[in-house]
Amino acid sequence: MTTHRLVCNVWHNILGTVPPALHVGDGDSVVTETLDAMGVDKDGVSRASGGNPMNGPIHVEGAAPGDRLLVEIVRMTPIRPMGWTRASLAANVVQPERVRDLPQSARTEWFIDIEAGTVSLAAPVAGLEHLVLPLDPMIGCFGVAPDRGQAFSTATSAENGGNMDYRGFGPGTKIWFPVFVPGALFFLGDCHAVQGDGEIVGTGVETAMEVEVRLSVVKGTKIVWPRAETDEAILTVGNARPLDQALQHATTEMFDWLTGEYGLSGVAASHLMGQVIRYQVGNVFDPAYTMVAKIEKRWLPPKA
Amino acid sequence: MTTHRLVCNVWHNILGTVPPALHVGDGDSVVTETLDAMGVDKDGVSRASGGNPMNGPIHVEGAAPGDRLLVEIVRMTPIRPMGWTRASLAANVVQPERVRDLPQSARTEWFIDIEAGTVSLAAPVAGLEHLVLPLDPMIGCFGVAPDRGQAFSTATSAENGGNMDYRGFGPGTKIWFPVFVPGALFFLGDCHAVQGDGEIVGTGVETAMEVEVRLSVVKGTKIVWPRAETDEAILTVGNARPLDQALQHATTEMFDWLTGEYGLSGVAASHLMGQVIRYQVGNVFDPAYTMVAKIEKRWLPPKA
Amino acid sequence: MTTHRLVCNVWHNILGTVPPALHVGDGDSVVTETLDAMGVDKDGVSRASGGNPMNGPIHVEGAAPGDRLLVEIVRMTPIRPMGWTRASLAANVVQPERVRDLPQSARTEWFIDIEAGTVSLAAPVAGLEHLVLPLDPMIGCFGVAPDRGQAFSTATSAENGGNMDYRGFGPGTKIWFPVFVPGALFFLGDCHAVQGDGEIVGTGVETAMEVEVRLSVVKGTKIVWPRAETDEAILTVGNARPLDQALQHATTEMFDWLTGEYGLSGVAASHLMGQVIRYQVGNVFDPAYTMVAKIEKRWLPPKA
Amino acid sequence: MTTHRLVCNVWHNILGTVPPALHVGDGDSVVTETLDAMGVDKDGVSRASGGNPMNGPIHVEGAAPGDRLLVEIVRMTPIRPMGWTRASLAANVVQPERVRDLPQSARTEWFIDIEAGTVSLAAPVAGLEHLVLPLDPMIGCFGVAPDRGQAFSTATSAENGGNMDYRGFGPGTKIWFPVFVPGALFFLGDCHAVQGDGEIVGTGVETAMEVEVRLSVVKGTKIVWPRAETDEAILTVGNARPLDQALQHATTEMFDWLTGEYGLSGVAASHLMGQVIRYQVGNVFDPAYTMVAKIEKRWLPPKA
Repeated sequence: MTTHRLVCNVWHNILGTVPPALHVGDGDSVVTETLDAMGVDKDGVSRASGGNPMNGPIHVEGAAPGDRLLVEIVRMTPIRPMGWTRASLAANVVQPERVRDLPQSARTEWFIDIEAGTVSLAAPVAGLEHLVLPLDPMIGCFGVAPDRGQAFSTATSAENGGNMDYRGFGPGTKIWFPVFVPGALFFLGDCHAVQGDGEIVGTGVETAMEVEVRLSVVKGTKIVWPRAETDEAILTVGNARPLDQALQHATTEMFDWLTGEYGLSGVAASHLMGQVIRYQVGNVFDPAYTMVAKIEKRWLPPKA
Repeated sequence: MTTHRLVCNVWHNILGTVPPALHVGDGDSVVTETLDAMGVDKDGVSRASGGNPMNGPIHVEGAAPGDRLLVEIVRMTPIRPMGWTRASLAANVVQPERVRDLPQSARTEWFIDIEAGTVSLAAPVAGLEHLVLPLDPMIGCFGVAPDRGQAFSTATSAENGGNMDYRGFGPGTKIWFPVFVPGALFFLGDCHAVQGDGEIVGTGVETAMEVEVRLSVVKGTKIVWPRAETDEAILTVGNARPLDQALQHATTEMFDWLTGEYGLSGVAASHLMGQVIRYQVGNVFDPAYTMVAKIEKRWLPPKA
Repeated sequence: MTTHRLVCNVWHNILGTVPPALHVGDGDSVVTETLDAMGVDKDGVSRASGGNPMNGPIHVEGAAPGDRLLVEIVRMTPIRPMGWTRASLAANVVQPERVRDLPQSARTEWFIDIEAGTVSLAAPVAGLEHLVLPLDPMIGCFGVAPDRGQAFSTATSAENGGNMDYRGFGPGTKIWFPVFVPGALFFLGDCHAVQGDGEIVGTGVETAMEVEVRLSVVKGTKIVWPRAETDEAILTVGNARPLDQALQHATTEMFDWLTGEYGLSGVAASHLMGQVIRYQVGNVFDPAYTMVAKIEKRWLPPKA
Repeated sequence: MTTHRLVCNVWHNILGTVPPALHVGDGDSVVTETLDAMGVDKDGVSRASGGNPMNGPIHVEGAAPGDRLLVEIVRMTPIRPMGWTRASLAANVVQPERVRDLPQSARTEWFIDIEAGTVSLAAPVAGLEHLVLPLDPMIGCFGVAPDRGQAFSTATSAENGGNMDYRGFGPGTKIWFPVFVPGALFFLGDCHAVQGDGEIVGTGVETAMEVEVRLSVVKGTKIVWPRAETDEAILTVGNARPLDQALQHATTEMFDWLTGEYGLSGVAASHLMGQVIRYQVGNVFDPAYTMVAKIEKRWLPPKA
């Protein structure tokens, strides 16, 4: 169990089969510094073109198509005292006329106070003088190379992960991605200091972070969509448009989890999901939307 | 401030302009016993045709088009020890083949223990022996008559409310509906002892309840979609298909609330919503889906 | 077989169960003058409020729930030399920024020359000096009262018809609507001199017309969605949002037609539809979109 | 102006930046034999894995990002007397229960008679004994490498083309694709002897063809979505889900064409499109759906 430091000089705006930046063993940890969504580093220097330049990919020894890659988010530390957001709701999440006269491309700066664990507007905004948000770091875009030699822009998401912008993907969360290529080829970047559901202004508070992840291979247990686990719950992810379709994917993956590893019948899984499922919305800004299905562990049966 | 008891002999499967079952004053309370979604009463007697037969409508003195009707859910008490659910996920929320061999129309019985405050399967289901859910009552279908003489089935929902199946519509919640006709004409029914997000088996735990609501008129302050408030948060509701459209309606109504009563600029509202909004999913089973946008009160500015 | 003249003094902005304006026998014809979509008559006098005020309803003797109402469009004669359109694409059918600076609510006048059978812009528009369109009259909004006492705005459409804005609903076309209430209660209005697919500016060339329809009852042969027939083809209609859902409804109704009256197996219907179906787009402007599925008669088997 | 013969030994199941199989000059023609959608050649030999293995890519001299690649479909000749279809409507285009008992994965054989120019079922199907369809060849999947190093499965489609399954893409049609990479990298395959709108059984009549295309570069005239032209009409293509979104893309591209090359104002383009546009449905089977917007040339102004 080694801890590697990944220092990037090139970044990728796709998730695909490109030469690995690092080879690690099964169960190794990686520490790396990410750029923000526009490619700016911790010192304010533009290092890569946006959007969402990725560190990686990381080749994980032993990972093969049909396996899962387990990504444990160990730690996320902001390494820049400033983040930024867009200053207007996206035109697709409201009646467009509501935002037609807002500055769609303007950026707003936010202070990130790591000591205090807070995020706040850098310049006062009338009515929001009180707004001091808890620092709640998350990875906006991460995942693995897709199958068949495909390569997807980091503006979107699919079965292999990508730009899901789900605020639950923070320290302490474990995520399993389906592995499609030898070594899995894991990418990450686009970290947010805080973000509401839906990423409805097109950004969270975008900043540079030092991230530590642990990468392990789970052999021979195919999944279709990403799965995740926190201390309290298990989660499944669907990425598609419209949001109905994303919800169907997430719900199907949860059904398969419950009827698979947890050994429930289809009727029992229906009973459980019907009365305790929770949905959370990831990105509704990008070409593919993200929906997360969640079941608290206290409702789960023992594993089969 | 009178408390009325509404005893129904006829029920409605629409929300529309039909003769009132009761006239009440502004600020009065109403206690009434609802049937379950299939029209069965507290004694197990079939009293009305399903689905979702409504008590009412209640004509509220002084309510006029352009006003809001405030509905405070004071109390919801199950009056039957049994509820029921469908035994299969709906075919539209998963890959249809997952549920093609499940008994789509079969019903499963649940015990409702009011003393203990619990809901549990009446007959054991393998793997769910541990499943004792907290009683968490909610109104599945309620609202007012729509505009222009329209009348909508209680299978669906729209600007006037209807079959939203949002689990947050329980005791302690206040809901404002737009008023479209003189007297507002308020309907309610379809109570659930508990329900997961999305009502993805097509039901919550359906039962008969005694419900107390307080009805008040807020003059001259037009809203487009239902709004709500709990101790912790303010909420807005969108009803449409696909879910993206419902999300847009809810987000637009929240934007209008923040830029209206809370006096925020469009940019300030975008900042606030972008970083703190939460979405919750109501019904994704019916012709119109329901999405709720939510902002915790601790993030709100003082009212303008 | 009588021909009635229906002269209206009241118009309806809903399709619902309201008192009939006329009773006719099975197989009778009705001649009536419609207002335009904004309620203006042939003389330019505003007679009713928009949008889409309906003549009717017409009670057809013998029609009962579970029957079909056959509507034959015998004749449509413009009775006003002027029509109008909106001057901008609707914001939902293009990238909204393309039309944000266009005059969304402005109206443009068009000449309707009945002798010549043409429709042309009343005032010259640069680049469109050559645009002389063939007069191609159609009914934008027609249908019957829906079931269960529901009533729907003439801005939308459903199983009972309504504002479908399909350019194929012109003279010579036969349409079957499902009957939901005694007498069927048939409504019509919102005639267009010409219209492109989708009604993407929110209007066709809106005008007043004299319309003759023949109304007949087909007993005991339930349909779910409207069906139609021209000299060349049979058609089915789906009304819903998103357009995918409308397409599914239309396709399902066509499948039911082919496996029902035409006696094809499911596999045979799949073969036929898969290789010869044509889709046409009705309204993509209103709350419910319209999709039409079409099969040319030359490909049909003899009726079973 | 050379005519090249492209003989493939490897095929691709993606459209992306892979080594060219052939370099041609601007304006050159290419003749090539395609495999069917499952990778079977003219002799019935399986040569590549499905679905939709592509011939190519072809590097066109001088093509650079920001240009258009003009593809003229000169000729399509079936080179196998047999084609095949799936035997059931896809579950997403009808109510799923309609097709749940049909043989979803079964294949049906069709005869292709090049002399007679007909396509017919190889084995008799009750009720379809009369079904002799005109041979109407089309390319199901073709396009260019997408931008930013992306690579998309031939199961789907995007701005760069791909699996659009539009029956209008046959001999005599010219298509312009946006160029994203040097040389454009043009791919083609998946030819159909005939196909209905929507490819609703998941296939047309799939077969091997000899195809001749002429490839030319149009410098410096960026487009977002594919455009096309036939003798009678100009067309634009949108690929997305839901179908509404595909329609918006196609409509936006047509608006841009009319206000660009044809010099119309936004209002004039709205007038023209509003009254004469036609929509046609490509694929509604794959992850991205295809909608085509069409305007007959007789309605176009002279080019600006």
